[in-house]
Amino acid sequence: MKHCSSCGQENELRIPDGEDRERHVCASCGTIHYQNPKMVVGCIVEHGNRILLCKRAISPRRGFWTIPAGFMELGESAPAGAARETLEEACAKVEIVAPYAHFDIPHIGQAYLIYRARLLEERFAPGPESTEVELVDPARIPWEELAFLAVRYSLELLCEDREAGRYRHHLGSVVRSNDGFALADHQFFKLASLKK
Amino acid sequence: MKHCSSCGQENELRIPDGEDRERHVCASCGTIHYQNPKMVVGCIVEHGNRILLCKRAISPRRGFWTIPAGFMELGESAPAGAARETLEEACAKVEIVAPYAHFDIPHIGQAYLIYRARLLEERFAPGPESTEVELVDPARIPWEELAFLAVRYSLELLCEDREAGRYRHHLGSVVRSNDGFALADHQFFKLASLKK
Repeated sequence: MKHCSSCGQENELRIPDGEDRERHVCASCGTIHYQNPKMVVGCIVEHGNRILLCKRAISPRRGFWTIPAGFMELGESAPAGAARETLEEACAKVEIVAPYAHFDIPHIGQAYLIYRARLLEERFAPGPESTEVELVDPARIPWEELAFLAVRYSLELLCEDREAGRYRHHLGSVVRSNDGFALADHQFFKLASLKK
Repeated sequence: MKHCSSCGQENELRIPDGEDRERHVCASCGTIHYQNPKMVVGCIVEHGNRILLCKRAISPRRGFWTIPAGFMELGESAPAGAARETLEEACAKVEIVAPYAHFDIPHIGQAYLIYRARLLEERFAPGPESTEVELVDPARIPWEELAFLAVRYSLELLCEDREAGRYRHHLGSVVRSNDGFALADHQFFKLASLKK
C-alpha cells in the first residue's frame, strides 16, 4: 500500500477525519484505501467414513495436506466458492451440505468459512495446485502434515463430532498463545437440517 | 485499481500465468493485485420482544434504518467486529448469542455475517453514524425504510422464526432478479446452543 491505486502517488498512514484508526491515505488525491479481512472458503468432503484431502503442490505449505479451500472471488457466494475450490484442487464436483465452521484468524486478516459437502460423482484427481488427492480415513489423517491451523481445528472437531454421532456448527478464532497457537472463543451450536 | 499500490506505475487487466481470470497486474513490477469480497458484520440485538434499529446519519442510505453493521476490520474476529459496530453505531454493549445469517451479495462483492446479540446494559444512543437508535417492536419495523436488502431479509426471517417459536441459521445470496432483487439459494438449519 505504498502507492495510491487511483493516482499512483504515495500514500501516508494517518487517521482520516471521523475515523478511529490509521488508514493508507493518498497524500495527493486523498483517496482512503481500506484493507479488510479476506475470506477463505473450503469444503470438508465426506464420502462414507472418509474425508477428501489434497497434498499441496504450491506455496505456501507445499507438500502439506489440506482440505480443498482458497480465497473467495468477487462475483460468487461463499458456498459456490467452496465448491469451486474443490473442483479446482481436487477435480471433484460437490454439493454443499451445511456450514461447518467459521474460524477467524485476526493476526493475518483471514476468515475461514468451511462447509461440509458430498461428492456428486465418485471422481476426484489432483488439480494443478495439488500433487495428490485422497479419501482418507479419519484414523489416518496426517495430523503433523496438515497445512493450516484452521483446517487442523476443523478436522479435529469433525472427528469429535462424528464420534459423538452429531454435527455441530463451530465459531472461533485462531490466535497466538504462549505455546504457539490456540482456538479461542470457541462456541458451538447443534445444527440440523430442516425440511422446507 | 488503475495504479500499482507497490510501485505506482499503471496496472493492466490480464490473466496471470496459471490463473483462470483477469486480475489487475502491474505492467512494470508484475505485482498481481487480487480483489476479494468484503465482510459486513452486524448484530440483530434483541431486547425482550424488541429489536435495536439505527437510523443512518451517513451515506449510503442516509435516513434509512438498519441493524448495527459495518465492514469487518483487520485484526478482529467477525463476532468482535459485529459487537464493535454495535458499540459505534448504537453506543450499546452487547454479547453475541449465535450466528444468525450469512448472506452473500455477489454482484457487489460483499458477505453479510449477522449475529443475534443481547444488550449487556440497557443503554443505547446514536453514535456518530446514526441520528436515532430505537428498540422497535417487530410489528413496527419500518420495512419500506430499511437501508439494505440483507438487513431486510434477516429481519423478515427473524420475524418468521419468532412466530414459529425457534431460531434458524440462514444461508443465501442476494441476487438480481426480474423484478429487482431476491434471496437465492436460501438454506436454513435448526440451531440450538449446546452446553460445553
